[in-house]
Amino acid sequence: MKKTVITYGTFDLFHIGHLNLLNNLKSLGDELIVAVSTDEFNTLKGKKTIVPFEDRIEIVRNIKSVDLAIPESDWQQKEKNIKEFNVSIFGMGHDWQNKFNDLKVFCEVIYLPRTEDVSSTSLKQKLKILDRSHITDLKHTLDLISSIVERFE
Amino acid sequence: MKKTVITYGTFDLFHIGHLNLLNNLKSLGDELIVAVSTDEFNTLKGKKTIVPFEDRIEIVRNIKSVDLAIPESDWQQKEKNIKEFNVSIFGMGHDWQNKFNDLKVFCEVIYLPRTEDVSSTSLKQKLKILDRSHITDLKHTLDLISSIVERFE
Repeated sequence: MKKTVITYGTFDLFHIGHLNLLNNLKSLGDELIVAVSTDEFNTLKGKKTIVPFEDRIEIVRNIKSVDLAIPESDWQQKEKNIKEFNVSIFGMGHDWQNKFNDLKVFCEVIYLPRTEDVSSTSLKQKLKILDRSHITDLKHTLDLISSIVERFE
Repeated sequence: MKKTVITYGTFDLFHIGHLNLLNNLKSLGDELIVAVSTDEFNTLKGKKTIVPFEDRIEIVRNIKSVDLAIPESDWQQKEKNIKEFNVSIFGMGHDWQNKFNDLKVFCEVIYLPRTEDVSSTSLKQKLKILDRSHITDLKHTLDLISSIVERFE
């Protein structure tokens, strides 16, 4: 019987870590379904993405190991998806260890072992991405200097 | 007869623009070969990439429309590749318009029409990537402020 694996994720700024995860998940079965979180759902989760949903899902959809890419738009859909797609394995990365054990009543739940997660951290470091706190600090410094300058002009 | 398309690129920070290019190139023929520039070759070209070669080629290799991914390591290999792979079409993005017309003696040369190139610019803007000039400016400002502070301490 065909073994269907399902996973859920954001896949923002697609990188080698994402690719390895998808390929590893595919190797657990015969078919891989990937649910990609929508922009609206991310907003609900207080999560900000750089790449729009349409682009994120399109890239995932075009990865060789991916058989089907669907949107993830709410917290409740995991059980629905497992049933509608006759899923055998719900697979996630190690960082979600034990977080989805409640799904074990529906299918096998596998957390992929820890791999060298170099991508996200080193990518962001190399990219020297300014995040909100950096910008806030810089603005604060700017305001301080401006007020000093104003006092002496 | 099988129509082989070949293209050359860096594919740093893989995004939807890259994906669309590859899919459009594939639609021109039956088989798509993608030559991905090595880190050494990029250094030769004075080009800096964020993602290492091994990861860049691995992502490209795993795109559905790509049949073969090979390294690009020198300027001379295009003619060699066209002959060894019996290439019918050498395809590139519009930004290379007319730059490879000398290859027309070997095969068809197609420059894909201009599409909405939103990805690279908007991605870098959204990423708020600090480039070398930004860092130089910030360091310069820091030095100026430090020297003022020192004078008054």
